[in-house]
Amino acid sequence: MGPQLSASIMPLISADHPGVTDLFAVLAYGEISAFYRLGHEAQQSPSLRGKVALAKMAAAEMNHFVTLEHALAERGVDVFDAMAPFVRALDAYHASTDPSTWLESMVKAYVGDGIAADFYREIAAALAPPVAATVRDVLAETVHSQFAVAEVRRSVAANRQERDRLTLWGRRLLGEAITQAQYVMAQRDELTDLVITATGDLNNIAALFDRMQISHAARMAVLGLG
Amino acid sequence: MGPQLSASIMPLISADHPGVTDLFAVLAYGEISAFYRLGHEAQQSPSLRGKVALAKMAAAEMNHFVTLEHALAERGVDVFDAMAPFVRALDAYHASTDPSTWLESMVKAYVGDGIAADFYREIAAALAPPVAATVRDVLAETVHSQFAVAEVRRSVAANRQERDRLTLWGRRLLGEAITQAQYVMAQRDELTDLVITATGDLNNIAALFDRMQISHAARMAVLGLG
Repeated sequence: MGPQLSASIMPLISADHPGVTDLFAVLAYGEISAFYRLGHEAQQSPSLRGKVALAKMAAAEMNHFVTLEHALAERGVDVFDAMAPFVRALDAYHASTDPSTWLESMVKAYVGDGIAADFYREIAAALAPPVAATVRDVLAETVHSQFAVAEVRRSVAANRQERDRLTLWGRRLLGEAITQAQYVMAQRDELTDLVITATGDLNNIAALFDRMQISHAARMAVLGLG
Repeated sequence: MGPQLSASIMPLISADHPGVTDLFAVLAYGEISAFYRLGHEAQQSPSLRGKVALAKMAAAEMNHFVTLEHALAERGVDVFDAMAPFVRALDAYHASTDPSTWLESMVKAYVGDGIAADFYREIAAALAPPVAATVRDVLAETVHSQFAVAEVRRSVAANRQERDRLTLWGRRLLGEAITQAQYVMAQRDELTDLVITATGDLNNIAALFDRMQISHAARMAVLGLG
């Protein structure tokens, strides 16, 4: 069983696959844009506790950014050059999902980050160990997101209208995330090759999106939505 | 020489002085308000590099906040309760020194933080070692402020009008900081007692403000101003 076992645990994607740079770069710009989104949305917080909770989430994003900046530097790549191709798609995602209320912000912080994390964790499973470790490191769940869960659950428990409204909002977040992910894949051949290699083939990508939809529904349920 | 030496290195202020809670609390709210100020001002950044530099400064402030939150929790104090008395003065400082340009933001990030750090470091010298260590920890200079120095120096080197304008801005920052510090001291007896004990007497407070003015001038010179 030696050779077969080795083959099954051998990562599909080596650390020098050119798509790895793209992967780190899109994650890095994701952290930056999440940082500014959280800082901006915190203005709507009804309390100082809410502001601080969002500020902690934002600071965690920047700590992750620094990890990615170093990982890219080790590959001889400047993070700003590498991020440039992804600015448009991520900015478009945030512009198309700009929360109009505090609760929409909370749902986006919890559900939006979860969608991205699902996608990247699946890819990580096929990556060479040091690359996979960096990806998992920057996706580490923080306790801060529990604040978002508590805020939303409390507010929707006794308010059916709010619950319905936020359920639709959650669906829109998933739709916009998939739209922008597809846009990025269409633009970046090396990243697309990495994702297809990681998942096996195009059918498996469809299966991946199905799994993401199931995880999304589970997260919505945690929030008391859906 | 034993007893005299011991006396001279003995901290003047024990860890259970009631002003220590106030000191940690005003530092904590300072970190929060600096976090949001930097996030807000980053919108004016002419480049993604500038935005990222400010985001890193902001994340460092939040890491310091968490240190203070824990230090207060160890004293059995909720950080939000403890910060409440300082919200007004710090918000007033930031409202009265809201930068209208990117360069004003940069000067404020470097000079404003420096003024506060000078003050707290002087106080730290008289505090019991564990308290002093927490204060010094959260005041640690970050390399990120070198970004602000480079931005300002480059811009004023060839522009006398900008230099004169930013020199006046720097003076205003010092004036507003001292105004708000005096307001806080007038409101909080225990903190005032701590500061007077730390400096020795009221004459020494005047000497402290003189030293702060000298450090301020040195920082302005680093920026190519004054």
